[in-house]
Amino acid sequence: MINPLYLPELRLMLAENNDVELKGFCEALHPARTADFMEGLSAEESWQVLSHTDSERRVEIFGYFNPATQVDMIEKLDRQAMAGLVAELAPDDSVDLLREVNPQIVEELLPLLPTDERRDILHLRSYPEGTAGAVMTTDVAMLSEDLSVRDALTELQQIAEGLETIYYLYIVDEQGHLRGLVSARQLLSSIGKNIRLGDLMETGLVTAEVDDDQEEVARKVAKYDLLAIPVVDLERKMLGIITYDDVMDVVVEEATEDAHRSAAVEPLENSYLETNLVTLAWKRGIWLFILFGAALLTAFALRSYEKDLKVWPWLVLFLPLIISSGGNTGNQSATLIITGLTNRNIKLSDWGRVMRRELALGLMLGLFLATCGLGAAWAVSPEEMNLASMWVIPLTLVTVVMGGSLIGSLLPLFFQRIGLDPALMSNPFVAGIIDIFGIVLYMNVAWFLLT
Amino acid sequence: MINPLYLPELRLMLAENNDVELKGFCEALHPARTADFMEGLSAEESWQVLSHTDSERRVEIFGYFNPATQVDMIEKLDRQAMAGLVAELAPDDSVDLLREVNPQIVEELLPLLPTDERRDILHLRSYPEGTAGAVMTTDVAMLSEDLSVRDALTELQQIAEGLETIYYLYIVDEQGHLRGLVSARQLLSSIGKNIRLGDLMETGLVTAEVDDDQEEVARKVAKYDLLAIPVVDLERKMLGIITYDDVMDVVVEEATEDAHRSAAVEPLENSYLETNLVTLAWKRGIWLFILFGAALLTAFALRSYEKDLKVWPWLVLFLPLIISSGGNTGNQSATLIITGLTNRNIKLSDWGRVMRRELALGLMLGLFLATCGLGAAWAVSPEEMNLASMWVIPLTLVTVVMGGSLIGSLLPLFFQRIGLDPALMSNPFVAGIIDIFGIVLYMNVAWFLLT
Repeated sequence: MINPLYLPELRLMLAENNDVELKGFCEALHPARTADFMEGLSAEESWQVLSHTDSERRVEIFGYFNPATQVDMIEKLDRQAMAGLVAELAPDDSVDLLREVNPQIVEELLPLLPTDERRDILHLRSYPEGTAGAVMTTDVAMLSEDLSVRDALTELQQIAEGLETIYYLYIVDEQGHLRGLVSARQLLSSIGKNIRLGDLMETGLVTAEVDDDQEEVARKVAKYDLLAIPVVDLERKMLGIITYDDVMDVVVEEATEDAHRSAAVEPLENSYLETNLVTLAWKRGIWLFILFGAALLTAFALRSYEKDLKVWPWLVLFLPLIISSGGNTGNQSATLIITGLTNRNIKLSDWGRVMRRELALGLMLGLFLATCGLGAAWAVSPEEMNLASMWVIPLTLVTVVMGGSLIGSLLPLFFQRIGLDPALMSNPFVAGIIDIFGIVLYMNVAWFLLT
Repeated sequence: MINPLYLPELRLMLAENNDVELKGFCEALHPARTADFMEGLSAEESWQVLSHTDSERRVEIFGYFNPATQVDMIEKLDRQAMAGLVAELAPDDSVDLLREVNPQIVEELLPLLPTDERRDILHLRSYPEGTAGAVMTTDVAMLSEDLSVRDALTELQQIAEGLETIYYLYIVDEQGHLRGLVSARQLLSSIGKNIRLGDLMETGLVTAEVDDDQEEVARKVAKYDLLAIPVVDLERKMLGIITYDDVMDVVVEEATEDAHRSAAVEPLENSYLETNLVTLAWKRGIWLFILFGAALLTAFALRSYEKDLKVWPWLVLFLPLIISSGGNTGNQSATLIITGLTNRNIKLSDWGRVMRRELALGLMLGLFLATCGLGAAWAVSPEEMNLASMWVIPLTLVTVVMGGSLIGSLLPLFFQRIGLDPALMSNPFVAGIIDIFGIVLYMNVAWFLLT
C-alpha cells in the first residue's frame, strides 16, 4: 500500500535532515501506520528515516514493513547496523526474516550479533518450518515459584521492555521444567499481600510440544482463549511461548492455504503479486496436469459409448449440464465436510451420520434439479428427442446428484482416515471424479430407457 | 466431542451427590476441558454438576459448552437460575446466546436480570449482526486521566474480576470520549512513581466504529497486533471493546464462510451437523439452481452446433476434457485473486498488473496443457480423426486456458469494483461461465481447422 502523497514530504524532510519532524513522524503514529506511510522509500531512505528515533521504536516500525522491504534492507544496508537491528527483534521474528535473506549475507551477519541472540537464533532455526518450535519466541518471563509477589513485580519491571508479553509469567523449577502460570491479573490483585508465586500459580496448563504442527497449536490457543501458549519439550522443559498475535497470523496463513488447495493451487509462500511467474506456473501446472489426467478418463469413457452417441446424438447437448450438476453438488459436500473437519465440528467417527445426511440431501437436491432438468429438456427439445426420451435427463440428474453428494462427502473423510490432509481433496479433483461417474451413469440410464 | 468414558463416572458422582469430587472435577481442569468432558450430559445433569462450584467458575465452564447445549440449558432449566447465569456472562456473549434462544423465553428472562445487565443487553442487541457493535463487550476499564498510578491500581484491583481484559485501561473524559490508553505494562513499570494516567497514556489509538464490518475490525486487530480494539461512536464516545479472542473467532468464521461461498454454498449459521436438512437443502439448492441456469446455456450452445457435431462426432469425446481444463484454470485464477483481495495483498488498482500476469500465466499453462492435449488426442485417437484434426485439441486448449485465466481473474475484480463481495464469484460459477466460452471456442477452432 503505497501512500504517494506522503513520500515527497518525507523526502523533503530527509533532504533538510529535519530531525524534529522526522522524529515526530516516527513517534506520533502507531508504528504500523508509520510503516505504511514509508512504503515506496528506498532501503537507504527508510534507514535514514528510522535513524531519527530510538532503537525500540525503530525495531517496532521495521517489524511492520512488508517482508520484501525488510529483506531488501537487511541485504543492502551496512552489515553492522543490520546486525544491531536483527538483535533487537524478537528471536522468532529474526528467524523468520533470516530465512528469506540470502544465506551468504546471513553468514556474514551472524558473527556480528551478540552471543545470546546468536545462540537463540541458531537454536530456533533448527526447528522445521510449520512447527511450534519455529513460531515460538524465547523472550518470556520464567520465574521461580519461591519468588514473592513483591520481588516478582520488581523483577518484571526490570525485564519488561525486552519481553513479548508480560501478561503471563511462567513458573519453572531449577531445571527449567514448566510448573505453572501466574497472570498479570493475579499479580495485580495480590500487590501488598505477602505470598509466593507458588501459592498463586495455576497448574494443569494447556501446552504445546515443540514438534506440534502450528495449525494444531493455533487451534488450541483459539479454543482455550489464551494470550500465549507455553512450548515445552518431551520432558516438559519450557522452551518458549507462542503469542496470540503470531497465532492470528497462522490462522490467516492456514485459511489462505486451504483456499488455494481447494482450487487446486499448491500453496504459495508469498502473496500472489510477490510470487514470480515461473513459481506460479509450476504451483498451478502440477495440479492442472493431474486434473488433466483425470479428465482424460472422460475421453476414454465417451469413446466406449461412441456408438450410442451416434444413435442418440441429442444426448451430447445435455452432457455438460449433467456432469456440472453432479460436480457442483459434490463440491458443496466436499467443502462442507472439509471445513467441518478443519474446525473440528465433524470427526471421522461421524461418517455414518454424514453419509445418511448426504443421501437425504442428495435425494432432495436431486429431485429438485430433476424437475429443472425436465424443464430444460423440454426447453432445449432437440428434434430427434421424443417425449419418452426426455425422462433420461431428470432420471440421470437424480442419481448423479445423489452420487455426487455421497462421493464428495466421503472422499475427504477417506483422506483424513488414511492420514492425508482432507483439504488435498480439491474441488476440481472431486468434480473430475464425479465427471467420469456422471458420464457412465448418463449413458447407462439412456441405454436402459431408450432400448 | 463426546467423551463417553467419563460420562458414567460423572453420573455416578451425581447419583451419590459427591460434592468433593464434583467440585474437584469442575475446578481441577481448564474450564474448556471440563466442558468437553461434560458433553453428552442432559441439560439438568449439566446444571447439577455446575452447582458444585462457585458462580465464576460455573460461568466459565458454561461459556465453553457448544452453542446448542447452551441454548438447550437456557430454554429447559429454571428461568430464575438461568437469568443469574446470563447476568454473569460477558454482555457480548449474553447477546450472542440470546439471539439463538426462543424469543418468548428471552422475553421471560429479561425482566429477571439485574437492571444494569438488562440495559447492556438491550443496548447491544440493537446493533446488527456482523458489525463491531454486535461483537463488542461493555465490560471494560474506563478511567479518568487525572487518576494517579497508585489510585488506578487500587481501582483496578477492585474491578478486575468483572472485566474481560485488564491489560488495556482506556482513558476517557467526563463525557466518555476516548482520550487514550494505558497498558498494564506501562502501569507496572510506573508503580511507585507519582504520575497521572494522563502522563502515561498513548494517544492516536487505532479504533473501530460501532457500525464497522466485523471482518474489517478483525483485519485491523491482526494488522496492529492489538489485544483489544476500542469501539467508538461517530463522536468518538467510547462504547466498548472487542478482544483478541473474539477477533480470532471472527477470523475463523469468515474463513469458513469464504470457503463455503467458494463452493457455492450459502454460508451456514451453525456447523454442518447442527444445521437441519431443510436449511442445508435450501442453502445449497438456491445456488445449484443458479448454476443449473448457467449450465443450461451450454445445452443451447451445443444445440446450435448440432450439425457440426454430426460431421465430426469425435469432437464430443474431448468436450469434458476441454471445458474442465478451462474451468480448472479459471478456478485457480479466481481463488488466487479472491484470497489476495481478502488479505489485502491485491488492490483494485492492480487490475492491469493482474491482467498481464494472468495472460502470461495463461499462455505458459496453455502451452503446457496443449502438449498434454496433443498426447491425449493421439492416445484416444478415434477412428475418424486424422492427423490434421488432432491439432484442434491443443489449439483449443491454449486459447481456452488463456481465456479461463483472464476471465477467472477479472471477474472477482469486477465484482469488487461494483461493490459486491468478490467471494460471491464462486468456483462453480466461474467454471460455468468458462464452460460456455470453452464450447464456443472449441467449435469455432474445429470449424476453422477442419473446413
